[in-house]
Amino acid sequence: MKVVLDPVHGYIELDDFAQELLATPQMQRLRRVRQLGYSNLVYPGANHTRFEHSLGTMHLASMLTKNLDSIEGDKKTEIKAASLLHDIGHGPFSHVTENIIDKYTRRRHEDIKEVLGKGEISEVLKKYGISPGNLAKHVKGETSVAQIISSEIDVDKMDYLVRDAHYTGVAFGVVDYNRLINQMDFYEDRLVVERGGLKAAESLLVSRFWMNTSVYYHHVTRISESMCSKAVECMIENQELDPSRLRQMDDIDLVAAMRNATGYAGELSRRLDTRRLYKRALYVGLEDVGKGVLKHRDKIQRAENEIAELAGVDSQNVLVDIPKTPEMLEMRAMIKTDHRMIPLNEASHFVSILQEAHMDNWRMGVYSPKEHCEAVGKAAKDYFEFKKAVKQFKLTDL
Amino acid sequence: MKVVLDPVHGYIELDDFAQELLATPQMQRLRRVRQLGYSNLVYPGANHTRFEHSLGTMHLASMLTKNLDSIEGDKKTEIKAASLLHDIGHGPFSHVTENIIDKYTRRRHEDIKEVLGKGEISEVLKKYGISPGNLAKHVKGETSVAQIISSEIDVDKMDYLVRDAHYTGVAFGVVDYNRLINQMDFYEDRLVVERGGLKAAESLLVSRFWMNTSVYYHHVTRISESMCSKAVECMIENQELDPSRLRQMDDIDLVAAMRNATGYAGELSRRLDTRRLYKRALYVGLEDVGKGVLKHRDKIQRAENEIAELAGVDSQNVLVDIPKTPEMLEMRAMIKTDHRMIPLNEASHFVSILQEAHMDNWRMGVYSPKEHCEAVGKAAKDYFEFKKAVKQFKLTDL
Amino acid sequence: MKVVLDPVHGYIELDDFAQELLATPQMQRLRRVRQLGYSNLVYPGANHTRFEHSLGTMHLASMLTKNLDSIEGDKKTEIKAASLLHDIGHGPFSHVTENIIDKYTRRRHEDIKEVLGKGEISEVLKKYGISPGNLAKHVKGETSVAQIISSEIDVDKMDYLVRDAHYTGVAFGVVDYNRLINQMDFYEDRLVVERGGLKAAESLLVSRFWMNTSVYYHHVTRISESMCSKAVECMIENQELDPSRLRQMDDIDLVAAMRNATGYAGELSRRLDTRRLYKRALYVGLEDVGKGVLKHRDKIQRAENEIAELAGVDSQNVLVDIPKTPEMLEMRAMIKTDHRMIPLNEASHFVSILQEAHMDNWRMGVYSPKEHCEAVGKAAKDYFEFKKAVKQFKLTDL
Amino acid sequence: MKVVLDPVHGYIELDDFAQELLATPQMQRLRRVRQLGYSNLVYPGANHTRFEHSLGTMHLASMLTKNLDSIEGDKKTEIKAASLLHDIGHGPFSHVTENIIDKYTRRRHEDIKEVLGKGEISEVLKKYGISPGNLAKHVKGETSVAQIISSEIDVDKMDYLVRDAHYTGVAFGVVDYNRLINQMDFYEDRLVVERGGLKAAESLLVSRFWMNTSVYYHHVTRISESMCSKAVECMIENQELDPSRLRQMDDIDLVAAMRNATGYAGELSRRLDTRRLYKRALYVGLEDVGKGVLKHRDKIQRAENEIAELAGVDSQNVLVDIPKTPEMLEMRAMIKTDHRMIPLNEASHFVSILQEAHMDNWRMGVYSPKEHCEAVGKAAKDYFEFKKAVKQFKLTDL
Repeated sequence: MKVVLDPVHGYIELDDFAQELLATPQMQRLRRVRQLGYSNLVYPGANHTRFEHSLGTMHLASMLTKNLDSIEGDKKTEIKAASLLHDIGHGPFSHVTENIIDKYTRRRHEDIKEVLGKGEISEVLKKYGISPGNLAKHVKGETSVAQIISSEIDVDKMDYLVRDAHYTGVAFGVVDYNRLINQMDFYEDRLVVERGGLKAAESLLVSRFWMNTSVYYHHVTRISESMCSKAVECMIENQELDPSRLRQMDDIDLVAAMRNATGYAGELSRRLDTRRLYKRALYVGLEDVGKGVLKHRDKIQRAENEIAELAGVDSQNVLVDIPKTPEMLEMRAMIKTDHRMIPLNEASHFVSILQEAHMDNWRMGVYSPKEHCEAVGKAAKDYFEFKKAVKQFKLTDL
Repeated sequence: MKVVLDPVHGYIELDDFAQELLATPQMQRLRRVRQLGYSNLVYPGANHTRFEHSLGTMHLASMLTKNLDSIEGDKKTEIKAASLLHDIGHGPFSHVTENIIDKYTRRRHEDIKEVLGKGEISEVLKKYGISPGNLAKHVKGETSVAQIISSEIDVDKMDYLVRDAHYTGVAFGVVDYNRLINQMDFYEDRLVVERGGLKAAESLLVSRFWMNTSVYYHHVTRISESMCSKAVECMIENQELDPSRLRQMDDIDLVAAMRNATGYAGELSRRLDTRRLYKRALYVGLEDVGKGVLKHRDKIQRAENEIAELAGVDSQNVLVDIPKTPEMLEMRAMIKTDHRMIPLNEASHFVSILQEAHMDNWRMGVYSPKEHCEAVGKAAKDYFEFKKAVKQFKLTDL
Repeated sequence: MKVVLDPVHGYIELDDFAQELLATPQMQRLRRVRQLGYSNLVYPGANHTRFEHSLGTMHLASMLTKNLDSIEGDKKTEIKAASLLHDIGHGPFSHVTENIIDKYTRRRHEDIKEVLGKGEISEVLKKYGISPGNLAKHVKGETSVAQIISSEIDVDKMDYLVRDAHYTGVAFGVVDYNRLINQMDFYEDRLVVERGGLKAAESLLVSRFWMNTSVYYHHVTRISESMCSKAVECMIENQELDPSRLRQMDDIDLVAAMRNATGYAGELSRRLDTRRLYKRALYVGLEDVGKGVLKHRDKIQRAENEIAELAGVDSQNVLVDIPKTPEMLEMRAMIKTDHRMIPLNEASHFVSILQEAHMDNWRMGVYSPKEHCEAVGKAAKDYFEFKKAVKQFKLTDL
Repeated sequence: MKVVLDPVHGYIELDDFAQELLATPQMQRLRRVRQLGYSNLVYPGANHTRFEHSLGTMHLASMLTKNLDSIEGDKKTEIKAASLLHDIGHGPFSHVTENIIDKYTRRRHEDIKEVLGKGEISEVLKKYGISPGNLAKHVKGETSVAQIISSEIDVDKMDYLVRDAHYTGVAFGVVDYNRLINQMDFYEDRLVVERGGLKAAESLLVSRFWMNTSVYYHHVTRISESMCSKAVECMIENQELDPSRLRQMDDIDLVAAMRNATGYAGELSRRLDTRRLYKRALYVGLEDVGKGVLKHRDKIQRAENEIAELAGVDSQNVLVDIPKTPEMLEMRAMIKTDHRMIPLNEASHFVSILQEAHMDNWRMGVYSPKEHCEAVGKAAKDYFEFKKAVKQFKLTDL
C-alpha cells in the first residue's frame, strides 16, 4: 500500500491496482490537463489538474463503498477503477474541447470502451480480470453502482467542489463530505442520502451555488473559454488540427498548436497568452432576453455573422455565448426518511429557494474586442430583438 | 505594543490603553462568561468566552477605523475602547440572564454608564481622558460611529460568527471579513458596504443563516437555556439570589449558586449538570401555530401553569419557549453603488430569498421531562387552540 | 450510531455503548474540567475540556484498533471504553490537583478500579459485560493493548497536541496523526511505528517540542498553577477542603471553594480571578543552577520558608517551582524496519538533536509579588547556593 | 484599487501600477512557469506558478514596508515593483533552466536591467517615473532596502514556504509571517528581527528544514530535474534549442520543444511525460562519500562518461547529481535585542542544532534506468573511490 499526499484529503492510499493504472501514459496525461481550464486567469491559484481530481474521486469512492455492505468486493474494485478513470476521456481544457469533440467526432461517451480497451490500461485491466466493456458502463453511468460516481450527489462533485475551493481560495466551497458519505446508502436501487445527512446535503448545495456564481460562471472564464473554443474550431476548419486527435492531447499540445496556428486562431492564441481578452458587449439574464434565445443555441455561428454585419465589423470580432438553462441536478437527490424517499428540494425549504436564486446566474454573453463593444452590443440587442432596457452589468457582476 | 494570540485572528496587538482596560477585574470577569451559554451541551468545543470575543471585536474595529479617514484620532480611540468593553454589561450565560436582568432590574443598557463610571475601569478611562458618559453612548449604539460595533453589519457580528464556527466546528461559519472591512465606509452618516463588498456581505448572511439553524436555534440549547432561566427565576423568587448582583457574577458564581439552591431550582441545576434535559413535548413553526401565539410572549408563566393543569402534571414539568419572530437585521445593511444606497435584500436576490428561508427557523417549544411529554404535548396543543395536524418533528430538526 | 461534531476531528461516531458511558454524571463532569488549567491566562482561547479530549482520544483509538487485526473484537470494545474513560480520575484543573491528590490521598491510579466499579458507570459496564477490574488495567496502562492509549506514542498525546494547538492558536501543533495511525502496529508485544511512519513520528516530536516551549512550560501558566496549588494546600490544611473529595469536583466546585476560602488561600483566589499574578523573582535553567537542585523537589515548603526568612518577607510571598527534569518519552518510541526495532532517536538524527534542545526548556522558578521580587530573587540565589551570574530572563523567554 | 483572491493570503490589493505591470506579457508569462518544476510528480497538487508567488511576495513586501517609517514613499513604490518583478528573469522550470542559462548565456542577474528596459514593462516604468537601472539593483539585491526581498529572512522565502506547503499538502510549512513582518525593522542598515519575533523566526527555520527534506530535496524531484536538465543540454548541443531564448520561454514552450526533440533528448522527454524515471543507482550522504566529492561538481559530464564506461553501459544511462553543500542562510539572520544584534543561531539554541540536522539532508545521487542500476551503482562507487560500506537507502529516505 503506497500513499500519495493530497492537499485536500491528506494521504490517499494506493493499492497495486491503482498504482498500475496511474502508471499508464493515459493517466499520466491528466497531470497536464487543468481542472478548471482558463479559470486561472481570474483565480491565479487554479492550476490544479484532472490527475489529482481523479485521485480524490477514487479516494471518496473507496470511503463510500467501504461503508456499503450491499456491494460485493468485485464491484467495489470496479467502482474504484471507474472513479480513478472517470475523466480519462477528457480532452485539453476539459470543458472547452468537450463540446468540440462532441461536434466533430463521435460523442464523448461512445468510445470510452475503446479507450479502456487499448494500450497500457487494457493490459492492467486484463491482469486484474476486469473487462473494459463493464468498466466503460460504470464510467458512462449506465450501471446502478455507477451512481456513486455520477448522479445527483456523487463523489465526483464532492471532490471537485472542495478541490476547486482549495485552489481558488473561495471560502464557501465547503462540503461536509465525511458526513455525507457516512449517510449515503442504496435503497430500492437508488443512491440516497439518509435523513441524518440532510444538513450535509444542504451544505453541498450552498457550495455548488457559491462556486457557480464565483467561479464556474465567472464572465472572464467564459470569455476566455469562448475565445479558446473559437480558435480550436478555426484550426479544425483550416486543417491545422485533427479533431480526432484531441482526446489524446494535453493542455501543452493544444497551446503549442494554437501558438503555431495562422490567422484568427493565432491572433486569439496571442490574446489568451497575454490576457488581452474580449470584453462583454452584451451580458443579460433570462428575464431580460426571454427564453426564446435558447433556440439560438444551435446557430451561434450564424448569429455571430449577422451581428457582425449589423455592427459593421469583421465577424472575428463577435463571440456569442448562450449557455444551457441552469439547473442544479443535486436538488433532485433523494433523501430517505423512514421508508420513503423525498427529493431534496421537497425535504428542505432552503434548497428549494436556492433553486430560485440559482436561475439568476444564467447570462447570455456577446463578447468583442474593447473598441467594438458599443457597436456590437447594440447590434446584438437588435439581433435578438428585445426592446427591454437592458441592465447590462448588474451589481452582482462585480 | 504587546500581542496576544487568538486562534481566530492570529496575533492581536494591544496598546497600553487596551492592556490597562484588560487588566481591570471587570474585563477579567469576562474570561469566565461563556460566549454561547449551554451550546457546549450540543457542540462540546463551544467553551469560548466573552473575553476573547471582546478582544476579537476590538481587533476588527481597529482594522476598520484604520481605513476610515473621516473618523478623527480621538474617536478612533473611543471606538476601540467601546468595542473592547461592549459586553461588559453581560451577566453569566449571557443570553439567559440578559432577559432576567431586564425583567428584574433596570434595563440592561441604562446603567452601562454607571458600570464605566466606577472601579478600575473608570480610573483607566480618566487616565486616558475619556468620559464614561461618551463611551457609554458608543457602547449603547447611540452615536454615529457606534455603527461600527452595532448596526446591521458590524464587527461584533463578524467576530462572533467566525469565532462560534471555529469552536463549534460548523463549517459554514465563514465570513469574508477582511474583504468586508476593506469595503465599508461612512456615507451620509450611515455605515455602508461598497458594491465591491456585496459578495462578502452575502457570505455573512449565509454564515448567519447557517449558524442560526445549526447552533443558535438548536433545540438542545434552547431547552437548556429555558431550564437555566427557570432555575434562576425560582431562586430570585425564593430570595436565594439577588437579581441586582447578576451583572457582577460570572458563570462560576451562577452555577455554584444553582448547586446550592433548594427545591425546583436545585433539581434543574442537577439536571443541567448531568445533562438529563427536558424533551420537546411540542415543537412547531409559525405556519402551524399561527402568528397569534406571539401575543402569549408576555404571559409565559400563566401558559405553563394552565398547560400543566390541563395535562394533570405539576407546573414544574412544563417550560414554554416562545421566541421573538426571527429577523436577520443584516438584510437591511446598506450597499452603496455610485451615489445611491440600496438595502442588501434589494441589491441581492439571493439575500432576499434567504430571508424567506430564515422564517422557517422559528419554532415555539414546550418542554417537559420525558415521561410527561405526551400529556404535556397534547395539553399544549389544546391550550394554544390549534387544530392543525402538527408535524411535530420536521426532517430538518435532525 | 449518533455523531457529535468536534472542531478538531470533525464528526465523531458514538455507538450505544459510548453514548451510555457519556451520559453518566462521571463523564459529564469532565465537561467542566478544563484541559489546560490556567493556560487560558496566556492563550485566551484555551478553554477546552477533558470531555472533548476524551471524545477525541476514543475517536483516534477506534481508528487505530480498526486497522489492527491482531486485536480481538472484545478487546477493541474494552480499549474504546478505556480511551473514553482514561481521564475519569482527573480532578479539577487537572495538573494542579493531580499532585495534591497523590500527596493527600491514595495514589491516583490505585482507585481507578473503584471509580469504575460504582455509580452509573458500573451499571453501563455491567450491561455491556465489561469488568471494571479489567478496564481499570487498561486505563492504568497495565495491559499490552493499553499501549494504544498510554505509551511513547499514543492516541492520548496525538489528540491533545492537535487539540491544544487548535484552541491556543499555536501554529506548530500539527501532527500527521492520520499517517501515524495508519503506520502503527503491534510487533513482539510492542506498539511500534512502521518505517513509513517515521516522518509522521518526527512531526509529532516537533509538535511536542513546540507546544512545550510555547504552552505547557509557559511561565505564566506555571506561576498561576503554583498559586492555585498553594491555595488548595492551604485550604486542606485549614480544613476548608476535604482532599478525598477532590476527584469528584469540577473546576466550578474548586473555584467556588477558593472564593469562599479565608486567609492566604482567599487572597490567592482573588489574585487568580483578577490576574494579579506573582512574578518571576528567579528563573534559571539547569546549567545555571546545577543538577543538585533536583534533590530539593521534596522539600519545597522548607525552601519557601527559608528563602522568605532570608528575604525578610512573609512566607506567603514565596513560591518555589522545581519541575522534574524534562524528558520527551516519545523519543523512545520504537520504529520497525524489516525485522528489527530501533528507538526513534536512533532512527532519526533530527529527533536525537531535538532531545538536546528540549533540555533547554527546563527552568526552576521562584515567584513572588512584584514588590518583593528583588529581595526574594537574591535570597533564592543564596539559598540554592549558586554563584554563577544568572541570566535571569533569557531571550527565548519572550 | 482592485483585488485578486489568493488561496494563501486571501485578497491581495492591486493599485494601478501593479495592475499595469501585471498586464505586461512578461508578467503574464509567469502564469505558465511552475514554481516547483517537477515536484508535481511527487506531490500532485504542486502546480502553482511564479505568477501567484510574485503576487504573494509583493503582498508581503507591502505589509512590511507599510510598517517601516524609515523608508521613503518612493522607495516603497520601487520595492513593491521589485518584489512583483523579482522572478521576471526565470526561465521555464525555474531551477532546471537557471543553471543552464548561467552556463550557456551571460549570468542571470546581469541582464535584469535589460529585461526591465524594454517592451511593455519599460513603458509602464517610464509612466511611473521609475528607472529600470535602479529597479534592477533592487531585484539583484544590490541595495540596502532590497534586503526585504532578498536576504537571510525575506518576504520571498516567507511566501514560497507557506505557498509550497499549501499546494503540496505538507503540514509543517507553517511560517508565522504576520508576526515576523511585524517584528522586522532596519537597524544599522541591516534588516533585523526584533526579539519579539524570535519564535516566529524559529518557526520559519522549522518550516524550511521540513520543506527541504520533504519537498525541495526529494529524490524523485531531483531525478526528474536531472533528466530534464540533461535533455535541454542535449537539445542545445544538437542546435535544437537556442539558449539565449530560454529566458523568454514558458513551461509550455520548453515541453513542446522537448517533445519535438530527436535522439536522447526526445527519449528523456517521453520518459518524463509518462513518469518512467531513472532510479537511484547510488545515493549517499557527505559522511559516506567524503567532502572531496564536491570538487567534482564542475566535471559532471566527465564523471558520467567514465562511470558509464566502467559500468559497460551507454553514457546516456548515467546521470550524476552533486548538489552544493547545504546551508540554511536563514540561520544567520540578525536578531536585535536592546542595542545589539546577534545571529539567529546564537540567539536560539534550537536553531543551532537544526543546522546540524540539516547537513544530513545532503545527498549525492547517481541515477540510471532501472535495469542498469546495479552496474552503474558499483561503477560509481569505484569512480568516486570510496570504500566505506554504503548504506544506500537510509531509513529517512522513505
